[in-house]
Amino acid sequence: MIERYQTNEMRQIFSDVRRMQIWTDVELAVVEGFVHNGDAPAADLDVIRANLPLIDQGFVDDVLARERVTNHDLAAFVDTLQSRIAVKESSWIHFGLTSSDVVDTAFSIQIREALEVIVRELRKTILATIALAERHKNTPEIGRTHGMHAEPTTFGGKVVLWAYQLDRDLGRAEKALAQASVGKLSGAVGTYSNVDPAVEHFALSRLGLRPVPATQVVARDIHAEVMYSLASISTSLESFATEIRHLQRSEVGEVFEPFAQGQKGSSAMPHKRNPIVAERIVGLARILRGFLSAALEDVALWHERDISHSSVERVIFPDAFHLCHYGLLKFRWLVENLEVKVEKMRENLDASLGLYFSQSVLLALVEAGLSRDEAYRIVQRDARAAYESKRSFIEILKEDPSVRVDLEEVLDESRLLRNVPKIFEGLGELKARLRDA
Amino acid sequence: MIERYQTNEMRQIFSDVRRMQIWTDVELAVVEGFVHNGDAPAADLDVIRANLPLIDQGFVDDVLARERVTNHDLAAFVDTLQSRIAVKESSWIHFGLTSSDVVDTAFSIQIREALEVIVRELRKTILATIALAERHKNTPEIGRTHGMHAEPTTFGGKVVLWAYQLDRDLGRAEKALAQASVGKLSGAVGTYSNVDPAVEHFALSRLGLRPVPATQVVARDIHAEVMYSLASISTSLESFATEIRHLQRSEVGEVFEPFAQGQKGSSAMPHKRNPIVAERIVGLARILRGFLSAALEDVALWHERDISHSSVERVIFPDAFHLCHYGLLKFRWLVENLEVKVEKMRENLDASLGLYFSQSVLLALVEAGLSRDEAYRIVQRDARAAYESKRSFIEILKEDPSVRVDLEEVLDESRLLRNVPKIFEGLGELKARLRDA
Amino acid sequence: MIERYQTNEMRQIFSDVRRMQIWTDVELAVVEGFVHNGDAPAADLDVIRANLPLIDQGFVDDVLARERVTNHDLAAFVDTLQSRIAVKESSWIHFGLTSSDVVDTAFSIQIREALEVIVRELRKTILATIALAERHKNTPEIGRTHGMHAEPTTFGGKVVLWAYQLDRDLGRAEKALAQASVGKLSGAVGTYSNVDPAVEHFALSRLGLRPVPATQVVARDIHAEVMYSLASISTSLESFATEIRHLQRSEVGEVFEPFAQGQKGSSAMPHKRNPIVAERIVGLARILRGFLSAALEDVALWHERDISHSSVERVIFPDAFHLCHYGLLKFRWLVENLEVKVEKMRENLDASLGLYFSQSVLLALVEAGLSRDEAYRIVQRDARAAYESKRSFIEILKEDPSVRVDLEEVLDESRLLRNVPKIFEGLGELKARLRDA
Amino acid sequence: MIERYQTNEMRQIFSDVRRMQIWTDVELAVVEGFVHNGDAPAADLDVIRANLPLIDQGFVDDVLARERVTNHDLAAFVDTLQSRIAVKESSWIHFGLTSSDVVDTAFSIQIREALEVIVRELRKTILATIALAERHKNTPEIGRTHGMHAEPTTFGGKVVLWAYQLDRDLGRAEKALAQASVGKLSGAVGTYSNVDPAVEHFALSRLGLRPVPATQVVARDIHAEVMYSLASISTSLESFATEIRHLQRSEVGEVFEPFAQGQKGSSAMPHKRNPIVAERIVGLARILRGFLSAALEDVALWHERDISHSSVERVIFPDAFHLCHYGLLKFRWLVENLEVKVEKMRENLDASLGLYFSQSVLLALVEAGLSRDEAYRIVQRDARAAYESKRSFIEILKEDPSVRVDLEEVLDESRLLRNVPKIFEGLGELKARLRDA
Repeated sequence: MIERYQTNEMRQIFSDVRRMQIWTDVELAVVEGFVHNGDAPAADLDVIRANLPLIDQGFVDDVLARERVTNHDLAAFVDTLQSRIAVKESSWIHFGLTSSDVVDTAFSIQIREALEVIVRELRKTILATIALAERHKNTPEIGRTHGMHAEPTTFGGKVVLWAYQLDRDLGRAEKALAQASVGKLSGAVGTYSNVDPAVEHFALSRLGLRPVPATQVVARDIHAEVMYSLASISTSLESFATEIRHLQRSEVGEVFEPFAQGQKGSSAMPHKRNPIVAERIVGLARILRGFLSAALEDVALWHERDISHSSVERVIFPDAFHLCHYGLLKFRWLVENLEVKVEKMRENLDASLGLYFSQSVLLALVEAGLSRDEAYRIVQRDARAAYESKRSFIEILKEDPSVRVDLEEVLDESRLLRNVPKIFEGLGELKARLRDA
Repeated sequence: MIERYQTNEMRQIFSDVRRMQIWTDVELAVVEGFVHNGDAPAADLDVIRANLPLIDQGFVDDVLARERVTNHDLAAFVDTLQSRIAVKESSWIHFGLTSSDVVDTAFSIQIREALEVIVRELRKTILATIALAERHKNTPEIGRTHGMHAEPTTFGGKVVLWAYQLDRDLGRAEKALAQASVGKLSGAVGTYSNVDPAVEHFALSRLGLRPVPATQVVARDIHAEVMYSLASISTSLESFATEIRHLQRSEVGEVFEPFAQGQKGSSAMPHKRNPIVAERIVGLARILRGFLSAALEDVALWHERDISHSSVERVIFPDAFHLCHYGLLKFRWLVENLEVKVEKMRENLDASLGLYFSQSVLLALVEAGLSRDEAYRIVQRDARAAYESKRSFIEILKEDPSVRVDLEEVLDESRLLRNVPKIFEGLGELKARLRDA
Repeated sequence: MIERYQTNEMRQIFSDVRRMQIWTDVELAVVEGFVHNGDAPAADLDVIRANLPLIDQGFVDDVLARERVTNHDLAAFVDTLQSRIAVKESSWIHFGLTSSDVVDTAFSIQIREALEVIVRELRKTILATIALAERHKNTPEIGRTHGMHAEPTTFGGKVVLWAYQLDRDLGRAEKALAQASVGKLSGAVGTYSNVDPAVEHFALSRLGLRPVPATQVVARDIHAEVMYSLASISTSLESFATEIRHLQRSEVGEVFEPFAQGQKGSSAMPHKRNPIVAERIVGLARILRGFLSAALEDVALWHERDISHSSVERVIFPDAFHLCHYGLLKFRWLVENLEVKVEKMRENLDASLGLYFSQSVLLALVEAGLSRDEAYRIVQRDARAAYESKRSFIEILKEDPSVRVDLEEVLDESRLLRNVPKIFEGLGELKARLRDA
Repeated sequence: MIERYQTNEMRQIFSDVRRMQIWTDVELAVVEGFVHNGDAPAADLDVIRANLPLIDQGFVDDVLARERVTNHDLAAFVDTLQSRIAVKESSWIHFGLTSSDVVDTAFSIQIREALEVIVRELRKTILATIALAERHKNTPEIGRTHGMHAEPTTFGGKVVLWAYQLDRDLGRAEKALAQASVGKLSGAVGTYSNVDPAVEHFALSRLGLRPVPATQVVARDIHAEVMYSLASISTSLESFATEIRHLQRSEVGEVFEPFAQGQKGSSAMPHKRNPIVAERIVGLARILRGFLSAALEDVALWHERDISHSSVERVIFPDAFHLCHYGLLKFRWLVENLEVKVEKMRENLDASLGLYFSQSVLLALVEAGLSRDEAYRIVQRDARAAYESKRSFIEILKEDPSVRVDLEEVLDESRLLRNVPKIFEGLGELKARLRDA
């Protein structure tokens, strides 16, 4: 992953040092399990603890040097750890384990830590989104379908839907987190041939994980679900960022990305001010969707495992967490600093010539006794006339003798918006839930 | 979708007749809502009910003919339905609604019906898988990692993991089902401009759905999750089918797909008997993964909706449900009829020269005081010797003076398999849950 | 594939009758090869020809009935064909062949026929696109980057790029066509064990194909390239359709999709006129990209083949050809009938307050001796002032004492557009090439 | 991209220093173009050249520092370059250009350099593959379809197909390279508003590129084709690596990955020797396929460009080139060092009980006058008997009174393999072509 889209939290979690620290934690938890199960003497554990090396960059470098001999990263780690502990008790380290017991269990811990970062940031993002929505609960804005003016809504009414969608993504992330909080210490083919299930149970509890029946490795449908949850978040952000890009375009001008002092919008055209952060967020989703395909292809390993998933995961998991987290941070920044042009929203609404009342007129005509199809054709004709002559739809309706309804009552914007507050009613429960988390 | 991979249940759900029946149900539920809310007289509803046409192929043909004029399928449906009801009360039909109110709400009902078929079939498949696993709980078989003999497991120990994985898929399908059981009647841009939220609430309850805040359409992250759940199921089946293909290959021969009387395995080679159903199941997963990409790309619609998702969904949703259901049916048939060659499993185990005891010997040497690395090198050397001379690993170990441990105790297959029953312990809860569903 | 997006040409090519006709053609070509090679008597061929059945729906039904016994489609076909020929000479049919010899060779012929349809339609589409481009070679329109007004271009200058891009897609389709025009008759594992290479050479020539070294099947990288070419076409159309959608949006209004008499834009809002065909074209690309993933996953078959690709191809190849062809037909219809609003383009340009001269002013200031950064900051400031006060950028520049350049010369739209004709210079060669094809 | 899968060549090409060097080359080529076109005095070019800074890490650091102000990487580069040149003539740098003129043209150069590395390595890989194929042209091995023994082939006959497939990939890479060797200097919206086409023509010639009509950026179908070519290569390698994994599995044992002294196959099981490099190669293809989806989604940019593709390309292009190159290097290493177990191939052939003669017997029976279906059933029955009794198929045939043919002639392995040399006939032309490149 290029520096540009990394975040500090993810860099820390996916560093070599952190990974080997977690490997060490797993190895130690298993020795504790052996002691607890009566397989190993408690004294040996004390000796190991007393001699445990610091897991720092120097340790990592030793492991990498050793790996050039073993051509196997976990074996190199075990060799290095044991030689650093340097007492015979160190032979309890990795006793009865297969590499994947350690690697997969540790990977679950990394995933948990990274997903916790995502979940925390997602909560903040939802709250920021709700704040923006509530600020503009009553800011009228034309709603658009197919890119065409439809009926009025409010800007807050638009944004509040983002909060609900992100809350569904939060649910997905939390489910993925719960499901991925599993480890396995059941050995080479998952049969507990050399480690008792009781040892697994004890050690995993220590690490905050649940045991899961496994082959040599934890089944990859679990990891694919993690990737799905990241891709879904990223796709949601793409969706909202697309909205921002649309609203910022020159002809619309209803919102603007914040623009820093000194920033250059275009190296050629000094007048440009572009929604580049929103565009970047859109791009990230494409990468994440590609990662999801790869993660799903990883599921069908051969027999009790092959290692084809490993190269994939080394690349896509850290990158996916970086990109998803980066996207959330950038999106929250957008939401917190977005320039909302309330007057321009009003202006665009007014430029609509009142055409957005077309359904209201249609319904009034139907209520007045016309068939739906007759009414439709009348309104379609008058709307076309308004659009083509750039005259007010309302004026044209008033002149049309076939329109025999009380237009004052029908053509009332506040009536169209009267139910918008209902859309906000779910926020109370949502905010309470986020606050309690 | 080609006939070949269709299932009856899905064909029914995704037929034109069924879709228009559901559209009619939605339109009627809204009129009931209007009556309940005091917007429409109860008598009008009675008149509509009394004049409601039968939704059959003739009705569908009329709608399709009308669509050639309107170039809009739902508008054609409404025109046709109203003209068939043929009384003025019919103007309550579609009153205040936008097409998507009906289309999306009805689509949720189709998804629910289709997911219920999947969920039911998934439950049966899990039970069949458990039955196979339990039948072979104690059938020893070599476990393989990287395609290479590792340590022994049992055939049931392999298959039981399929049940656990399918149970996770069941969880995904149930979550997707719960989440997709939503509708919206909130009009052109989701503001309830012409339909009261109370009407929505009443009508959707009638239809067994929950209201969801929406734009003109239900947000597509919800549909993408449905597709994810289908892709995940299909990918799990791919995984198990891959195992079957491996176990059937000529050199392994541990299981065989059922082979019907009269079947021809190969048009050229009469001796062939191929795992073609398993191979077909593998192929289906590739299609489903591609559909998932498309479904995720559908999320970022423009503003309050555009209709780019519609062509996608018309193709991929019926197809995905057909393929997923077809795959489940075929997989269950495989599981229920699989020929398991117990003797061949024994034979392959024995052909392993006892090499699968290598970790046991390693651990015994470590317990006897050697360092892990010393022990590793001894065992690796003796294993290589066994492999290359095709002599028994056990004999070679016995001849090796550096191996000073009680080999009788170490080289005991039943010891390696003693904990396999533990893997089955979760089945009780699972079976109870499936039985109660 | 649902009826809605099928085309007549593709339906014919991928019908059961056509497929079995081609199978028959292949079988017959091989017998001719045997005769030519001296393996079979010419008289036997004559007898076979004289007794050859008509390949019609009745024949297809017989094969399908037989398939319910053999569970193998090609074997069922051979049985049926031989029993219909009903003379002993019929045993030359399929002599020495394996199913895939016939199936894969025939599939190449279907692909060729379908790609030829695509290539022909692509040529027409390019010509239609060129015609639109030339019609509007000199129609000024604001160019937009990041959705923001940048500098002027012409509408034709925009559209001509579509022609060049489609021409690259034509190149891809022609390459895929050339590469896929291969067959194989080399038997069960590609060793020509029972068919002489000379027979293959003769028979494939008859069928207009080249031999390709193969396993039991033609390598699937070839088919994946076909799918790539379809996905690329579809993605190009998505790109152009996205442009049309943008230009049609309410605030822009520069082009409109044709709208038929009687059409309903929205069932709720009679004033709506939506770019639904362009939106549909966008959706199709998502499906095609998903198919490409599946086609690439089909490449890594096991050993001399497995049949996992078959279920995939049965679904995705006909569908991909239908969708790609349908998209091309719809896109050409759009291009041929697009309503181009020349005055609205002028209006939008003028609404830009002259800001699109910002780079011209910048360069003039640099030429007048300012550093690039100084000049940039001056222009950025004045542009911001224009935008915020909605006053003419030109007026503001004139009032700015730091802008000491000849503004009359600088602020000249025709200067900005003077080189647009250069972009059209490649069309001569392109049109000649298309005309000669 | 993690260190682990990087290659030196790609690291160099995609380094910041190299990118900024190329940016400088492009800027300078344009000034040369201005001089050549008479727009700028030659003396100014000389002054710029004389003051040109060294592009090293220090320069890069200055640009990155500046970017924190401009929030625009190319603008930061131009500012830094001009301030380093530090004479007024530096204002010719970037004169009349838009960022993308430089960025996209430079990206084409990076792509060209990286594709040239791929093409060179691909040629070496094909030659290594041919060498392996020729070494084992006559090494008999059972061919397998559906994972089941089919008919004999030779190991070389298998491997030679890899060479042909890689040659098709070479064709794809060369086409992508030719097509991507384009640049554009046509300014903000591709209209040459401030740079004459003649300047573009001159500057691009200097850089070894062709001009391409463009918006602000080069159309992304071109970049997607580059990614397709990388994904196709990687997918081909996946295919061959899958074959190696199959052939190495314990029950087959026909080839082995090289295994270094000191290597540990499994941390738990010292007897293991796993095809981990082949497995890793398989994983890489999954990532590349995901990247292809993302690259295709990048095509449909808005209007004259948006920047959503940029974040995608920053991540996936360097990574794709690294992974593809790494995969090629590893695959060539495999091919050059593969341990081929000729005796084991013989042994597996013999274990087939002669069943692979089934088609030969079938054809002989047909030639002797039986109908195809009768003959099929006889052979199928005898094959089944052989398989189930583990007796020689040949013996059983001899005992079967319905088999009235000369079995000595029919059951001849050398007859089955007689045409294998034909498959090698295309190598002469291929080797000559590679040698001439």
